[in-house]
Amino acid sequence: MSEEKKENTGMSRRDLIGGTTKVATLTGLGAAGLGAAALLTPEQVRAASNSNAVVEPGELDEYYGFWSSGQSGEVRILGLPSMRELMRIPVFNRCSATGWGQTNESLKIMTEGQLPHEKEFLKDKGGIHLNGDAHHPHMSFTDGSYDGRYLWINDKANTRVARIRCDVMKVDKMITIPNAADIHGLRPQKYPRTGYVFANGEHRVPMPNDGRDLDDPTKYHAIFSAVDGDTMKVAWQVIVDGNLDNVDADYQGKYAVSSCYNSEEGVNLAGMTSSETDWAVVFDIEAIEAGVKAGDYKTFEGDVPVLDGRKGSKYTRYIPIPNSPHGVNTAPDGKHIVINGKLSPTVSVIDVRKLPDVFADKIKPRDAIVAEPELGLGPLHTAFDNKGNCYTTLFLDSQVAKWSMDKAIRAYAGEKVDPILDKVDVQYQPGHNHTSMGETKDADGKWLVSLNKFSKDRYINVGPLKPENEQLIDISGDKMKVVHDGPTFAEPHDCIIVHRSVVNPNQVWDRNDPIFADAVAMAKADGVDPEDANHVIRDGNKVRVYMTSIAPNFSMEEFKVKQGDEVTIVVTNMDDLDDLTHGLTIANYGVCMEVGPQATASVTFKADLPGVHWFYCQWFCHALHMEMRGRMLVEKA
Amino acid sequence: MSEEKKENTGMSRRDLIGGTTKVATLTGLGAAGLGAAALLTPEQVRAASNSNAVVEPGELDEYYGFWSSGQSGEVRILGLPSMRELMRIPVFNRCSATGWGQTNESLKIMTEGQLPHEKEFLKDKGGIHLNGDAHHPHMSFTDGSYDGRYLWINDKANTRVARIRCDVMKVDKMITIPNAADIHGLRPQKYPRTGYVFANGEHRVPMPNDGRDLDDPTKYHAIFSAVDGDTMKVAWQVIVDGNLDNVDADYQGKYAVSSCYNSEEGVNLAGMTSSETDWAVVFDIEAIEAGVKAGDYKTFEGDVPVLDGRKGSKYTRYIPIPNSPHGVNTAPDGKHIVINGKLSPTVSVIDVRKLPDVFADKIKPRDAIVAEPELGLGPLHTAFDNKGNCYTTLFLDSQVAKWSMDKAIRAYAGEKVDPILDKVDVQYQPGHNHTSMGETKDADGKWLVSLNKFSKDRYINVGPLKPENEQLIDISGDKMKVVHDGPTFAEPHDCIIVHRSVVNPNQVWDRNDPIFADAVAMAKADGVDPEDANHVIRDGNKVRVYMTSIAPNFSMEEFKVKQGDEVTIVVTNMDDLDDLTHGLTIANYGVCMEVGPQATASVTFKADLPGVHWFYCQWFCHALHMEMRGRMLVEKA
Repeated sequence: MSEEKKENTGMSRRDLIGGTTKVATLTGLGAAGLGAAALLTPEQVRAASNSNAVVEPGELDEYYGFWSSGQSGEVRILGLPSMRELMRIPVFNRCSATGWGQTNESLKIMTEGQLPHEKEFLKDKGGIHLNGDAHHPHMSFTDGSYDGRYLWINDKANTRVARIRCDVMKVDKMITIPNAADIHGLRPQKYPRTGYVFANGEHRVPMPNDGRDLDDPTKYHAIFSAVDGDTMKVAWQVIVDGNLDNVDADYQGKYAVSSCYNSEEGVNLAGMTSSETDWAVVFDIEAIEAGVKAGDYKTFEGDVPVLDGRKGSKYTRYIPIPNSPHGVNTAPDGKHIVINGKLSPTVSVIDVRKLPDVFADKIKPRDAIVAEPELGLGPLHTAFDNKGNCYTTLFLDSQVAKWSMDKAIRAYAGEKVDPILDKVDVQYQPGHNHTSMGETKDADGKWLVSLNKFSKDRYINVGPLKPENEQLIDISGDKMKVVHDGPTFAEPHDCIIVHRSVVNPNQVWDRNDPIFADAVAMAKADGVDPEDANHVIRDGNKVRVYMTSIAPNFSMEEFKVKQGDEVTIVVTNMDDLDDLTHGLTIANYGVCMEVGPQATASVTFKADLPGVHWFYCQWFCHALHMEMRGRMLVEKA
Repeated sequence: MSEEKKENTGMSRRDLIGGTTKVATLTGLGAAGLGAAALLTPEQVRAASNSNAVVEPGELDEYYGFWSSGQSGEVRILGLPSMRELMRIPVFNRCSATGWGQTNESLKIMTEGQLPHEKEFLKDKGGIHLNGDAHHPHMSFTDGSYDGRYLWINDKANTRVARIRCDVMKVDKMITIPNAADIHGLRPQKYPRTGYVFANGEHRVPMPNDGRDLDDPTKYHAIFSAVDGDTMKVAWQVIVDGNLDNVDADYQGKYAVSSCYNSEEGVNLAGMTSSETDWAVVFDIEAIEAGVKAGDYKTFEGDVPVLDGRKGSKYTRYIPIPNSPHGVNTAPDGKHIVINGKLSPTVSVIDVRKLPDVFADKIKPRDAIVAEPELGLGPLHTAFDNKGNCYTTLFLDSQVAKWSMDKAIRAYAGEKVDPILDKVDVQYQPGHNHTSMGETKDADGKWLVSLNKFSKDRYINVGPLKPENEQLIDISGDKMKVVHDGPTFAEPHDCIIVHRSVVNPNQVWDRNDPIFADAVAMAKADGVDPEDANHVIRDGNKVRVYMTSIAPNFSMEEFKVKQGDEVTIVVTNMDDLDDLTHGLTIANYGVCMEVGPQATASVTFKADLPGVHWFYCQWFCHALHMEMRGRMLVEKA
C-alpha cells in the first residue's frame, strides 16, 4: 500500500482488517458521562451512537431501499437507515407464501409475455420458469427524478424484464425479450420520463438462436433493447459488437450508454480478456427512432424492429475504455457518465455534452472522455452525492474510494491534483453500490450502501453457504463511516435508495384492480357477486367455488367435488383493514395463496386426491385464526 | 384497563400505543454529556443505548436464532441480539437461488419420504410440492439441552416433517406422516436425548382418508406421531379425541403433552368453540412403547403401529383445560408445563410429578394442575428465564405478561399474592415467543423474542401486504424493554434462540458427504473422477456432463447435445475456501443450482430448446465472475 493511500485513510488497511473495533477505540471518546444502561430518547441514542443509522422501535425509516436478490429471483424492500427487510416481492421465483407462480392471476402475468419458443419449451414443465437471476431494480423517472409509479427488474437467467406496480408492490407485467440472450444491465430513461427501459442482452448468440450457427461465434450477437415502460412491449432493438454489460441513460433524453466487454468476441476466458481496451457503446435514441420510422431494420422473433448498431453504424458510437468496463453511472450533475474499469484501476468519465460531436464525427470517440482517475483495483460501480463527489467500489481492494469529479477532470487536464478524497474498507469484495437518491438529480448525499459479495468472518458461521454483506456507510461528513453490516441471502446484487416521500402505496386493494379483474368477470359470468359469494358452480368436470373471507370465517364451511374434477377456487377478502391479509391453503394439495384485504385471488387444480382435505387461512388474522377453515370433500371416482 | 394493570406497567397501555418514544422521553436522561456524533467504542454505544442489543460492524452475534417462516416454507437463521437474517434454508419451498426442488440431490431428499398416495398425486405435477407451512423449528436435545446436531420443522400444509443437519445447515431428510392430516405442533424429546420427535396431526380426517366416511365427522380422528429422530421413520402413532395443537416434552423422558382443542369435535367455528373446556392430552411414552411391543395396535398407511389413545385409554390422560388451549411450554425447572388458554385469560400449570398418579388413577386429571393464573386476554405461548419467571404472549391485549411461577402456585393454593410482575406492550398481536435457551435446562434469562402477527403502522408502508413484526425484548432486568422491531416476510411463526457455543457448522463441505454421494458414485461408474472432471458421457439419449469449478473457470468451455436428450450436469466445486460458493445457471433453461465449496451438485433436464445456451456461475466468486461461463450447444433434432 502506497504512502499516499495511508494518508487518505488515516491508517493502513492491514491494521483495519480485523474490523472497525480498532478504529473506534483509537478515536472514541472516554466513557465518562455515559454511565450505565438507561432508557434514552432516540435522539440521545443517535447522538451517542456512531451514526444516524439508529431507528428505535416505533420510529419509521426515512428511505425505501429496493433491492434485487440475484439468483433468488425476487425483489426486496428494505427500510433505511435501519437496513431491515420490510417485504419480499416475488418476481421470477416461485413463492410458497403468496402462491406466486400458482394463482391464476400470477400465471397470467408470468405467461402472457412469453415468446412462442418459450411456451413450447415450458409446456410440459408447468408452463413457467421457477427461477430467475434478478440484477438491477430501477424506478420510473419523470424529469430526472423518481416518480413512484413503477419498478423494473431484469432476469439474466431467463432473458426477462418484469415491472412492479408501486401502488401495490406486486408485479403486473413480465415479458421475455426476443432475439436477445440473458438480459443483464437495465436502466430506465430519466428524461423527459420513463418512457424507455433499456435492457442489455449480455450473451452473444446466433440470430435466430434456433440451432443454426451453433459453433460459429462470428455469427453470434448481443442485442440492446428498448422496452416501452408503459405498454411493456419491446419498442426496438440494436445489434452491437462485443458483450453488453451495464447501462445508464443521460438526463437529456438523448443517449443511453452501455459498457461493453469482450470486444474480442471470444467464447472463453482467455479470448474474452486478451485485449487491453473494450468500449462504452453510446446509443443515439433520436437516430434510432428515425431509423425505425425509415424502416432501416429487420425483424426476427417477436416482430420487433432490429437495427444494426455494430461499429460504423450511425446509431451508435464505440468509445474505447480500458479493459472490460463494467458499471455505468450517470452523475446527478447531468453532465457526466462514469464507466468503471473492472480490470483497469481507472474509471473513465464521459462528458455527455461532447456526444453530439462524437456522433457528428467532429471529434474522436475517446475525445468524449474528460477524466480517467486511477482509483484502485477492480473499480466496478460508482455512486454520487449532491456535492460533486463520487463513490466507487473497488472489488479487489475491498474498498470504496471517494473522489472529486471536479478534481478528476482537472487532473486529466494536467493539473497536479489528487482526486481521491477518502477510502474506506468494506467487508468484502464490493460489487454494486448506491447512494440515497443517487441516480436522480435529487441525490442527497446522506447514505451509501456497499453490496459486498463475500461476508466470510463477519457473522457467526452458518455453514458452507455464507450470506453476502451489505454495508451502510454514512457519507454525510468528510470521512466515510461504515455504520451497519447487513447479511443477506443470495444475493443483494443491486439496489436503489428512494426517499419515502416518493412512494405512496395503497393500504388495501382497490376492488377494481386489473390484476384480479378476470376472476371478478368469471364470477359475474357465473351469476356470482364475488363480494357476497358462497357458490359452487359445476360445468361438466369443471367446478368453480366462490367464497369470501371475513376474519375468522370463510363464507363456505365445506364443498364437495369428484376425484378428477378441475377445481377453481375464488376467494374475495372482504376485510377492509390494513394488514388484514387472509390466505387459502388446501392441505395436501400443494395449494397456498395470499388474499390481501379487498383483493380477489383464484387458483385452479385437479382434485386427484380423494378424501377429506381441510382448507385453512394461513395468514394469521384473528384469535380464532386456527379455526378459520373448512372441508373440501373429494368423492372417489 | 384495571388499576392493577396500570400499576404493573407504570403507565396505561393507551398512552403507549403511539410507540416507545414516549416511554423513552419520560424516563430518558438529559442530553448532557453525550455531545455531538463521534466515533465510540461498541461498549460505549451499548452503554449509551437503550439496550445490549447493539452489534457494531465487525462484531459477532452471541446467539443463533432458528426461525420458521410459516407459509414461506423455509427455515431462517438469525443472529441475536442484532436480529439480522443470516441465512435462509430452503425446506418445503422451491428455491430459485440454490436449486432446492430442482437438483437431483434435493429431489431425492424431498421424494424418498413420500407416501404412495402422495407420489401418485404428484406424478403429473413435477413430483414434489412447491409449498409448505413451516411452524415449529426445534433442535435436538441431549440431557435436557441443545446438542447442535439437528433441527426439525413441521409442514402443516402438506403433513411433513423435515430434518436439517446443523453441520451444513441443509435439509437431509423429509418425510410425510401417514394417517395424520396437517402436522402442526412439533417438539423433540428432551431427555435422555432426541430420540423421538413428537408431531401433532392437527386436523381430524377419516382413517384411511381415501374417500370413505367423507361427510361423517364422527369417523374423523386426529393422530399424534412419534418420529425417530435418528432414522426419520415414524416409530408409532396414537389416535386421540379432539384436534391436536401444540406439544412439548418433559425433562424426564416419560411424557409428552399436547394441547387439544375442539373437544366438541365440531367441523365449523360454532361447533369447535361451544364447550367451555378442552384438554391437555398427556402421552405415557413407556406405556405406548409397551403397547407397541405387545401388538396393541392397528396399521393403516405406512405400516406404522397406530394405538388407540382416545379417552379411557391407558396410553393417555385428558386434563381439562379452559377453552381452546394453544401453546404448551415446559419450564426449565423440569417440573412444570404451562398450557396457554387462548380463549381463556388463564394459563394452566401442570406439575409433571403428579402425572404418575394421574395415570394410576390415584388422582383426577385436573389434580395435576398446580396453578392457573389469569394473565390477560388471549394467552398463546409462554417462555422462561433462569429465575423462575414466565413470559406469556397475550394475543388480544398485544402484550407480554411476566409472571412468577412460584407466586402463581402460591396464589392457586389460596395465598393472596399477585403472580404478575410486569407487562409490556408489543406491536401487535403476539403469537409465539421464545427466550434465549429458554426451552432447555440452560435458560439464561437474557433475551425474549415476541413474534407478532401484525405490524400495521410500525414500518413505512409497503402496500396491502405488510410484514409481520418480531420484537426483541431485554429481560435481563426487572422490567421488560422492547429494544428492536424486526419486520419479516410471512411469517415468523416460531423460533428458538441458541447460544453460539452449541452450534459449530463446517466451513466447507466434506467430499464424503452423503448428500451428494449418489452423484459421486454415478461419476465413478462412468469412470470419471468428479474432482478432476471434464467429461461428456453419452448413453443413448442420456448425456452426463461432468465438470469442476475453480474460480473463475468451469473445467469445460462447451459441450454439445442433441435436442430431446436427457442431460445431467454434475459440477464439483474444487475451491476450498470458506464462502467460495459457485453456481451453475443454464440460461433460458430454468436451471440454477448452488455448488458449495468442496461440494458436488447435479441437475437433470431435457434439452428441448435448440441453439446456443450459455451456462454461467451465478454465485459471485471472482473479479472475472461474469466471464466464468461456457456454452451448451443444442443441435436441432
